[in-house]
Amino acid sequence: MAVYTQLSARELADLIAQYDVGELVSAKGIAEGVSNSNWLVETTGSAANGKRFILTMYERRIDIAELPFFLGLLDHLAAQGCPVPRTIHDREGASSRMVGGKAVALIEFLPGVSVDQPTPAQALSVGKVLAEMHESASSFPGRRANDLGPDTSARVLAQCGAQALAEIDPGLPAMIDLAQQVARNWPTGLPGSIIHSDLFPDNVLMLGNTVSALIDFYFACNDAMAYDLAVTHAAWSFSNDGKVFRPEVGQALIQGYESVRQLTDAERAALPLLAQGAALRFVSSRAQDWIDTPTDALVTRKDPMDFVQRLEFYRRAGKDAFAA
Amino acid sequence: MAVYTQLSARELADLIAQYDVGELVSAKGIAEGVSNSNWLVETTGSAANGKRFILTMYERRIDIAELPFFLGLLDHLAAQGCPVPRTIHDREGASSRMVGGKAVALIEFLPGVSVDQPTPAQALSVGKVLAEMHESASSFPGRRANDLGPDTSARVLAQCGAQALAEIDPGLPAMIDLAQQVARNWPTGLPGSIIHSDLFPDNVLMLGNTVSALIDFYFACNDAMAYDLAVTHAAWSFSNDGKVFRPEVGQALIQGYESVRQLTDAERAALPLLAQGAALRFVSSRAQDWIDTPTDALVTRKDPMDFVQRLEFYRRAGKDAFAA
Repeated sequence: MAVYTQLSARELADLIAQYDVGELVSAKGIAEGVSNSNWLVETTGSAANGKRFILTMYERRIDIAELPFFLGLLDHLAAQGCPVPRTIHDREGASSRMVGGKAVALIEFLPGVSVDQPTPAQALSVGKVLAEMHESASSFPGRRANDLGPDTSARVLAQCGAQALAEIDPGLPAMIDLAQQVARNWPTGLPGSIIHSDLFPDNVLMLGNTVSALIDFYFACNDAMAYDLAVTHAAWSFSNDGKVFRPEVGQALIQGYESVRQLTDAERAALPLLAQGAALRFVSSRAQDWIDTPTDALVTRKDPMDFVQRLEFYRRAGKDAFAA
Repeated sequence: MAVYTQLSARELADLIAQYDVGELVSAKGIAEGVSNSNWLVETTGSAANGKRFILTMYERRIDIAELPFFLGLLDHLAAQGCPVPRTIHDREGASSRMVGGKAVALIEFLPGVSVDQPTPAQALSVGKVLAEMHESASSFPGRRANDLGPDTSARVLAQCGAQALAEIDPGLPAMIDLAQQVARNWPTGLPGSIIHSDLFPDNVLMLGNTVSALIDFYFACNDAMAYDLAVTHAAWSFSNDGKVFRPEVGQALIQGYESVRQLTDAERAALPLLAQGAALRFVSSRAQDWIDTPTDALVTRKDPMDFVQRLEFYRRAGKDAFAA
């Protein structure tokens, strides 16, 4: 959570002048995004593009070559009526520009706040919007492979090594074998689309029980739609430490999803394993971050055990985790 | 630059419900303030209070007992027509509330951006608004002593010690004696009011050449008005590293100030020493922060030498630094 790059008032004004949005009125660096700098920008506005925007500067981790995929996807989904911020194109029609060697994009501001303890009514809305997003995304021509699938989780955990993992928590080394087992049994042939693949409550803005925006599509990729539902289930249906499953939230999520798009029998059967793979993805990335982040750094490390708890729940509950 | 405290959507909504501002629509943590957490908040709005606000949570350094002074001053200045954000009072009339043991205030959002290389036209406006602020503040009944005057600078530098200062820069130990000399010769009896005392470009929002807001009054105190002008002169009239004086900016600042409030002969004569005192305040606080901040911390330490450069300029130039 930081603004990594300072932009002067003049740089900001010059940048804004490249878009049909009027003149710069205000710009506040916002404490969101871990691999980007973001500003909430207000301008005098234009009829076409309004007057409030998120300006994103891509700092690291995001490959600039992939921006046309991510930004094009936002425009595609917004055009289909999904609650997704569209990108503002500059006067030459480009959805991103370079400023001081870094890519930036001006993105529509959408209202809403992120909830941290979702209610069933909120989960119902999220499930519905997730299914609508999957259906709308299926006609998007861009393609991007999922580079954070079960094989990656297995490899990352193996690379961390049993000793380093044990130093974080004695429960972690067992994840190395488990991740290999999940990767070996990973289902294939499930119906696919472009998936968000990181739809934590942070990445959903809500007004009351209504989803006003899905944001932060920088992990979006082609993969099984049911895997996205499993990621979302793992992210929404537990207490933050992963110790308490909230069945009414999980049920509402799936119910909302199926009110738009019915799961196939194969998808339903795959959910328990997909959810284990989802949990392992976050176990592996958090374990790696934990090992890579010095203990005295000011960055808060996320505990990988929060998702080991979820993983164990999914192994224990099997298909009951997804009972209607 | 951080948000030190997380507030959940529910906590935010509950807090906002205490004010006549409608319902919460959006809240973004903003990367401003070093001792506070700040959110840019949007609500459905009310006729009395509008719909965009800065929510400030006081984290440290600010004594809650002093909030009535700081917040009352904002309201007083705003009521007199100064471009200062007013505070929004809750339904019981209070300008601050407690949330989880911390004080918060809801403050009017004002447009504008901070400039980093001010033009003479911008400095002229700032000088004018500073003088207006001094005149308007003189009728404010609250009082607060300046705890960052020349005696404090001298004491802080002495406490740092010559050895620790020399490790930062060989030019710093000489500041210990100099600060004592400035403190001994500090002028008394100059016309006073409440002063901002930290009016760096960061704390001024502008739209073009017009000042749209003075912000961050958390160093405001009773002191000589000419000292505030000297602080502002030191903060605005140099390149960032302090090595290049920009006479046209300094002149415009004083010209703007005097277009509203003529300096007395005593004030004019005192400016060279007041400016040295202003520079020493930032030399001493930066030196102390430098020593107190571990080298591997993610916080950027500000170089105290930037203000040693300014100090040396003021000693060298004497009253010529303030020539019209």
